[in-house]
Amino acid sequence: MQENQKKCMELANRIYDLDAKVYKCVGSALGRTFTGNRESTVQNLCMMMLTKPDGHLLRSELALIGNMARTIPDKEEKRRMLTEYDRILKEIENLPDSFGKVDIVDLARAELNPTARRKLSKNDHLVICISRTQGSAGNDIGFELADELHINYYDVEIFNRVLNRLEAEKGSVTDAETDHITDFDKYRKRSFRLKTWFREFNRYHGLPRQDAIFFNMSDLICNLARTEDCVIMGRCADSILSNNHIPHISLFISAPFSLRVQRIIASKNMEFRQAVRFLKHMDRQHKKYYDFYTDGHWGRPESYDLCINSANYGIRETIDLIERMIDQKRK
Amino acid sequence: MQENQKKCMELANRIYDLDAKVYKCVGSALGRTFTGNRESTVQNLCMMMLTKPDGHLLRSELALIGNMARTIPDKEEKRRMLTEYDRILKEIENLPDSFGKVDIVDLARAELNPTARRKLSKNDHLVICISRTQGSAGNDIGFELADELHINYYDVEIFNRVLNRLEAEKGSVTDAETDHITDFDKYRKRSFRLKTWFREFNRYHGLPRQDAIFFNMSDLICNLARTEDCVIMGRCADSILSNNHIPHISLFISAPFSLRVQRIIASKNMEFRQAVRFLKHMDRQHKKYYDFYTDGHWGRPESYDLCINSANYGIRETIDLIERMIDQKRK
Repeated sequence: MQENQKKCMELANRIYDLDAKVYKCVGSALGRTFTGNRESTVQNLCMMMLTKPDGHLLRSELALIGNMARTIPDKEEKRRMLTEYDRILKEIENLPDSFGKVDIVDLARAELNPTARRKLSKNDHLVICISRTQGSAGNDIGFELADELHINYYDVEIFNRVLNRLEAEKGSVTDAETDHITDFDKYRKRSFRLKTWFREFNRYHGLPRQDAIFFNMSDLICNLARTEDCVIMGRCADSILSNNHIPHISLFISAPFSLRVQRIIASKNMEFRQAVRFLKHMDRQHKKYYDFYTDGHWGRPESYDLCINSANYGIRETIDLIERMIDQKRK
Repeated sequence: MQENQKKCMELANRIYDLDAKVYKCVGSALGRTFTGNRESTVQNLCMMMLTKPDGHLLRSELALIGNMARTIPDKEEKRRMLTEYDRILKEIENLPDSFGKVDIVDLARAELNPTARRKLSKNDHLVICISRTQGSAGNDIGFELADELHINYYDVEIFNRVLNRLEAEKGSVTDAETDHITDFDKYRKRSFRLKTWFREFNRYHGLPRQDAIFFNMSDLICNLARTEDCVIMGRCADSILSNNHIPHISLFISAPFSLRVQRIIASKNMEFRQAVRFLKHMDRQHKKYYDFYTDGHWGRPESYDLCINSANYGIRETIDLIERMIDQKRK
């Protein structure tokens, strides 16, 4: 502790000196960060270094000196000042309780995030899970991204085709945008018929039909992600893969409501009010589906690795951005 | 129209043939996408090409064939199949009403987004606006990012220092985390004193004090962004720069609540309940501030270019990710 205090005192003095020197070089009335005398300033700085909660204040003081130093016209002087600045910064970072010491990281997730670890291991596959709001061009982006990376693309229609065939002999347990997402409602009232109920009970091993579909889909998604590189659209794939400890990247693509409305009008031949109603309905359904089957909240930044506002990029640039982020060159 | 229909017919036939050939190469029972006869399949495909709303179905059919083609063991065959697949895809994309034709883009914003345009012009500066939730390490990330890019870093403390000095003679119109964000409330009741009111009215040109601070800050932010590369933390800088047509990147950094609580406990020496209360309060205040001074919604993906979940990366990897995204090598 004694040692630590001495080190802080030394650093505080160096910071005070650096500020004075930078001020001399810049020569502006705004140049000086510390206007008090040496004694009180050094004491103040020491306090900041020794008490955790004020770490960010110290950082701001330093940043201010650094910002000023970068405006020094004389190149040689500037280099000297910035070298000392960097040295002080490093030494403060090495203090036991300095700022930036406490990382924010969900190790279990970061370990399985290929854009965080930078390198996939030999057995891992590049699996990109894309959630999106209707009308944000998420599907177009996913499809073209897969095409450029030369990896497989899966969306709800494809899953249905595959499941349909795999289960052809057992009786189909499939899903369709119209049948499932659009009308997803766990608790809607249905007319109860014993015969139907009994047939469905057997077919889906006692699970409600929606859940049976979801679990079949989950198995399929896990199998795919374990065996090949691919882009998977929706289906809560990010959450399913996290739960099964399978590496993947999770993206959410959205755009402001008004722009999505415009796009739906143009691409689906809808009228304004119809498009608004359609988008609101789809957003509600997506949210219900995601929130029911996962621990996360649909459309919130905390539920994904990354959220992209496709309207601020356009389709082409969004794809480029994703490629830069996953650090894959087009093959 | 007649011509278009003929083209669609030709493409539909080629798709049918490609599927048959791929099936032959793969040899699996799952290999065939179209199980119907040629006539009805071709008619169906034509319909999809000619009617907008079903564009995504056609894309799924094609993706399924492409996915299968990639599994062909014979390399020469695979190459041939995928070449034909690419050709068909290109030709469909060139049809007047095909999928992927309607872009989603806010041109005004994309034009000012350096990560979308890929290249800054000579007169533009690299300005990175970072909003964040408390406890997500957003400040640490911003500070280190600026340090690595060798550009200036501005946060609320620095703005206050600068404003304080610039306005020293007029009387200070400043802002502080404790004074402003933490207690931001436009409509809180205050004991009304004529003397105070009159003094403040003069000092802030008739504006409420909070607003006067905000407008001074806005001017400063615009001036900075016009003259230098920098990282700006919070202060609705993204919205201010958009309104003034100044190029910038807007990021939102957040992390799941439970992880932010953990980090606050570790970095600020708080107890669990205190940390929870503190974070909830700060989130509310940030939201109030942002939603009041901008058109956007705080913390929603549509309000920023990009949202990053720092817990899925950690501080170090988040910085690397941002650097990859803005395509700047460390100097």
